[in-house]
Amino acid sequence: MSEEKEVTIYDIARHLNISATTVSRGLKDHPTINIKTRRKIAEAARQLGYRSNTFASSLRSKRTQTLGVIVPRLNSNFMSSVLAGMENAASREGYNLIIAQSLERADKEMDNAQTMFNKRVDGLLVSLAYGTESIRHFDDFFSRKIPVIFFDRVAVHPESTSIIIDNHAAAYQVTQHLIEQGCKRIMHLGGNMALNVYSERLRGYKQALRDHKIAFDEKLVLTGNLSEDFGASTAAHILQLKHKERPDAVFSANDTAAVYCMIALKQAGLSIPKDIAFAGFNNDPISKVIEPNLTTVNYPGYNMGQAAVNTLASHLNGETSITDTNTIVLRSELIVRDSSQKNIPSR
Amino acid sequence: MSEEKEVTIYDIARHLNISATTVSRGLKDHPTINIKTRRKIAEAARQLGYRSNTFASSLRSKRTQTLGVIVPRLNSNFMSSVLAGMENAASREGYNLIIAQSLERADKEMDNAQTMFNKRVDGLLVSLAYGTESIRHFDDFFSRKIPVIFFDRVAVHPESTSIIIDNHAAAYQVTQHLIEQGCKRIMHLGGNMALNVYSERLRGYKQALRDHKIAFDEKLVLTGNLSEDFGASTAAHILQLKHKERPDAVFSANDTAAVYCMIALKQAGLSIPKDIAFAGFNNDPISKVIEPNLTTVNYPGYNMGQAAVNTLASHLNGETSITDTNTIVLRSELIVRDSSQKNIPSR
Repeated sequence: MSEEKEVTIYDIARHLNISATTVSRGLKDHPTINIKTRRKIAEAARQLGYRSNTFASSLRSKRTQTLGVIVPRLNSNFMSSVLAGMENAASREGYNLIIAQSLERADKEMDNAQTMFNKRVDGLLVSLAYGTESIRHFDDFFSRKIPVIFFDRVAVHPESTSIIIDNHAAAYQVTQHLIEQGCKRIMHLGGNMALNVYSERLRGYKQALRDHKIAFDEKLVLTGNLSEDFGASTAAHILQLKHKERPDAVFSANDTAAVYCMIALKQAGLSIPKDIAFAGFNNDPISKVIEPNLTTVNYPGYNMGQAAVNTLASHLNGETSITDTNTIVLRSELIVRDSSQKNIPSR
Repeated sequence: MSEEKEVTIYDIARHLNISATTVSRGLKDHPTINIKTRRKIAEAARQLGYRSNTFASSLRSKRTQTLGVIVPRLNSNFMSSVLAGMENAASREGYNLIIAQSLERADKEMDNAQTMFNKRVDGLLVSLAYGTESIRHFDDFFSRKIPVIFFDRVAVHPESTSIIIDNHAAAYQVTQHLIEQGCKRIMHLGGNMALNVYSERLRGYKQALRDHKIAFDEKLVLTGNLSEDFGASTAAHILQLKHKERPDAVFSANDTAAVYCMIALKQAGLSIPKDIAFAGFNNDPISKVIEPNLTTVNYPGYNMGQAAVNTLASHLNGETSITDTNTIVLRSELIVRDSSQKNIPSR
């Protein structure tokens, strides 16, 4: 085993014949140190093999080998896959996970962040709450160079990386697929448009309509909490529309709303996909059980969890830096099933 | 607010005019302290209002306000509900949760336990892995009086409490319900019989048959991993049986196997519940989507998670002791849906 000693700011200070405080400030890009000196310090740090993360962590007393995870809700199919992937990667990298749920509330997310900070986590993984409008409550982390990674529901910050799927492209693909099946009045069921995941899906839907010369009709976009009840009430809304105003397809931003809308429409005697085609999002287990099986987008929760932890670990090991990376986009895929295929005989 | 000071071993030592070391050892029932002295110490501790849990935690440097959670897999519908309940209770009680998954392997569970121990968790919540045959790897916790609570998949230990549902009674109820529908050849799909949850369900099934004078037929019990594939292959097995050997009902120990068995049988032209009635276990989201909807047992994961953390917190606060409680049994309920109702016209 290598016995090589870790290079410290004192080694850099000795090398440059300046004070350790100056080195420390220089590495932080502190404005009181002039640019030339900052450059000299950075060069010496590189030459001597100083690891920047050592610096970041030396701001606190010691590493805890613990990562904090804040999610809106633990009990969702997607989030449990994410957590499983995170735990797998974390245990391989020698980290423990501390978990907390915001219950979609900004105030609880603030509390969670404070708790994680006090627990001295080495890094933080966050999927933002429905109610979150600012990410100022993570400032303590940013100012102390404790890395924060946002995943799925993300916010842009210069010192953070976001891990997402290309929601715009996925929604575009779904909508285009429905258009190719001959659908012209495609309804979109969306969530809170303040969240990137839902606003991007709406944008992708609109773009596909535009590219296929289909006029966008505001009345065909319904937003809500995408619950079972929302799905059922959407069906009731569709049924009371005049025939020529009815959609010939529904693209829902999750599977739950799509499935419960289908169930209610089937009970009312409509045939799927003949009367109305359906597509969802997430590839939840229910999408393979509903009849006809639901066309959907496979959302790689497990991979997203692994990628988030691996990125954080690699930053903490000083191998890569999350301040260099803005966004990591994971592959998602359209899974075409019977609920959207108008061109084949119904089974 | 009360300003009363916590009673320490030094108070007891002064009171009895002996050394604090003797008090500490006496409270630990250390063999080097004679029985009479141990009794005197215990009495003084009671008189002065010394809290035993303070003692337990004083064995370690300090409380971490952290609870460890070890589960077989994070990505299951049941476990994500449990975790959500745990997080809710933990955050109310001021504890953080560290999570780990054993991936059903005993060796990983041992590693997890060691990690949690090194992280100095104040208490441990465990649902045992498929492969676990002994709980010796929790001895470090027991010997240091760090409370361990088993939930769902449990093991008996004098210093631990188990939190479960009455699997025997639930399975009895399901089987009796199927018998009341006129079923006489009821197949049971079970899991690893080394685990309490599955062995108890088998026992409940057998007891109900016995009480209704139906002979137990070994050939009607299939065990496996209760996956989608297991459900589908069970259907293939049923279809190749001679007509009079076919079951007229299937009671599966989870919903997944029941649902995928139903899907395959329906594809083969069988009618449910007319030809074969079905019942599952867990009340997973798919049970409300399969047609006909699946009769099942509602498994209160969220409540189980809350109860486990509340019990642990109450022990750590010195309000109750888990060494006094052997088992906490939560209510589950039979949810009768169309898949098992032979006596009503099929919809």
